[in-house]
Amino acid sequence: MAVYTHLGAEALGELICAFNVGDLVSAKGIAEGVSNSNWLIETTGYGGGKTGHYSENGGARFILTMFEGRTEIADLPFFLGLLDHLADKGCPVPRTIHDRDGASFRSLTGPDGEEKVVALIEFLPGVSVSLPTPAQAHAVGIALAQMHKAVEGYDQNRRNTLALPEWRDLLEACKPEELATIDPALGETVTRELAFLDANWPRHLPTGVVHADLFPDNVLMLGETVTGLIDFYFSCTDIIAYDVAVTHAAWCFDNAGRNFNPAISAALLKGYESVRPLSVEEREALPVLARGAAMRFLSTRAYDWINTPQDALVVRKDPLAFARRLAFYADPAHADVFA
Amino acid sequence: MAVYTHLGAEALGELICAFNVGDLVSAKGIAEGVSNSNWLIETTGYGGGKTGHYSENGGARFILTMFEGRTEIADLPFFLGLLDHLADKGCPVPRTIHDRDGASFRSLTGPDGEEKVVALIEFLPGVSVSLPTPAQAHAVGIALAQMHKAVEGYDQNRRNTLALPEWRDLLEACKPEELATIDPALGETVTRELAFLDANWPRHLPTGVVHADLFPDNVLMLGETVTGLIDFYFSCTDIIAYDVAVTHAAWCFDNAGRNFNPAISAALLKGYESVRPLSVEEREALPVLARGAAMRFLSTRAYDWINTPQDALVVRKDPLAFARRLAFYADPAHADVFA
Repeated sequence: MAVYTHLGAEALGELICAFNVGDLVSAKGIAEGVSNSNWLIETTGYGGGKTGHYSENGGARFILTMFEGRTEIADLPFFLGLLDHLADKGCPVPRTIHDRDGASFRSLTGPDGEEKVVALIEFLPGVSVSLPTPAQAHAVGIALAQMHKAVEGYDQNRRNTLALPEWRDLLEACKPEELATIDPALGETVTRELAFLDANWPRHLPTGVVHADLFPDNVLMLGETVTGLIDFYFSCTDIIAYDVAVTHAAWCFDNAGRNFNPAISAALLKGYESVRPLSVEEREALPVLARGAAMRFLSTRAYDWINTPQDALVVRKDPLAFARRLAFYADPAHADVFA
Repeated sequence: MAVYTHLGAEALGELICAFNVGDLVSAKGIAEGVSNSNWLIETTGYGGGKTGHYSENGGARFILTMFEGRTEIADLPFFLGLLDHLADKGCPVPRTIHDRDGASFRSLTGPDGEEKVVALIEFLPGVSVSLPTPAQAHAVGIALAQMHKAVEGYDQNRRNTLALPEWRDLLEACKPEELATIDPALGETVTRELAFLDANWPRHLPTGVVHADLFPDNVLMLGETVTGLIDFYFSCTDIIAYDVAVTHAAWCFDNAGRNFNPAISAALLKGYESVRPLSVEEREALPVLARGAAMRFLSTRAYDWINTPQDALVVRKDPLAFARRLAFYADPAHADVFA
């Protein structure tokens, strides 16, 4: 939630000239995304137009993203190509706007003389819900399954760089006494769960390109319609059902992970399976995959919690919100959730 | 530069229903303003429409401002009424959107159960320039003078709560050794200049409603056209020529206050006088008023510098940028700037 780099109107105007989207009309730094700077840009519209010509109804809108270090530039062709592939297949994802030379991203010199990479992305309507209804969760399940079908034929791959080995690395980089400051039992929990996941992680399930971070923040909705799946900067090639598990962990609990919502869970899975039925193997693996999904966010949050100064500009997210989800999924009493 | 309060889509949607602006289509927290939270809101447009009906060309856009404490709620009728008055007179200021009951602001219960006051303001196109050209400064001078003429007939008043007595209060609240940490000579400068301003502040110049904070950040432009004067939350009744001095101090130097730009200065004053010629008394008072304008921002910046923890979320602004402007205006060698 920040704009890390100041970009003056002159630099923005010059940048927009590199695209066939008309002239710059408005630019507002937006508090979206945790690791990149974003601006909501308005222009006079595709194909030109003169500065000063401005329709009351508004011009074309875009999101300008400046990659601030956490995203590997080498991965941008994968991420941005995926948006174009999915949009072509009719998924509600924002297209990348290519510049006049056909490039999906370009660099510019920032105010400190530093080279920064930026991409211009289609703006999509919709808002992110905070308290989803079952009907909304059903629609999200459908959109996720449609995405999983639509990635077929996408010819790029990206290894999941936040998978089981990395969860272990992140958690082993935290000293036991540091983990104990978060919760006295946390060290023991992660040791036990990492061993369980190592022994039980499914090896032969179908893989494909997955979003891997489909929290409510990354879904735009109008009423019960999904208008946008956004923020694909964790997308990668992994077990498809793992994406179902991540989405389940992201949507079916209150933020703190204290309360599981069975109606949301049932609606999400029902929506998903109305488009892409899970195989018996996938369904049987979901409890393990969900423990993995909880561990994925527990590991990054615990690492960030310990390694982010308390007074930093970034708001630290509570690791225990996912330790609680992990405990929920690991509890045999909840075996029926994915039954 | 922040969004201080999280407002979920549900709360935002409910709020928008109180206005006759259609349904919520999009809401992005924007990094604008230092003391309030702001969202760029898009709706299906005036007079209704159903959720989900969304034109590719965009709906109506608004800025939703949540007042976070620095703005006195008792002053809102003055600020918001001023916007409507100026818009009626043809000035490029954003109108306040009144709710279905005719109110220009309303309260809502924030996520912490706290009552928050919000106003819905018209969105205006344009971007804030970082490196103004003389032609842009000329246009800003014209817009400022037009505003000074258009406020005639506005029937509300507000005392300037950041005038000479408050500059003294703020600076006296800083200990000499704290001022010395900013610059060893600052304490002496401030004592000398406050005495000078006390003795020389003009008493009989025309007064009216002034913006009092017309920095480039608070002006929206498209090319050389002023499309918006915004952020009136320091506006008040004061000496009209003082507003010219504030705008001069804000536009005619680089940020750090090291370099004065005579071409910008000449263009700004020429633009202003093409609409509202300064009287001989006003022109003669400008050097003193400009020292006051520099002191106004020096006093708040020095106070904030000393009283804001270095690790706070707010970026502290350098007081010396205005100590340098003060030294410039106080230097007899620069007597010709306002001649």
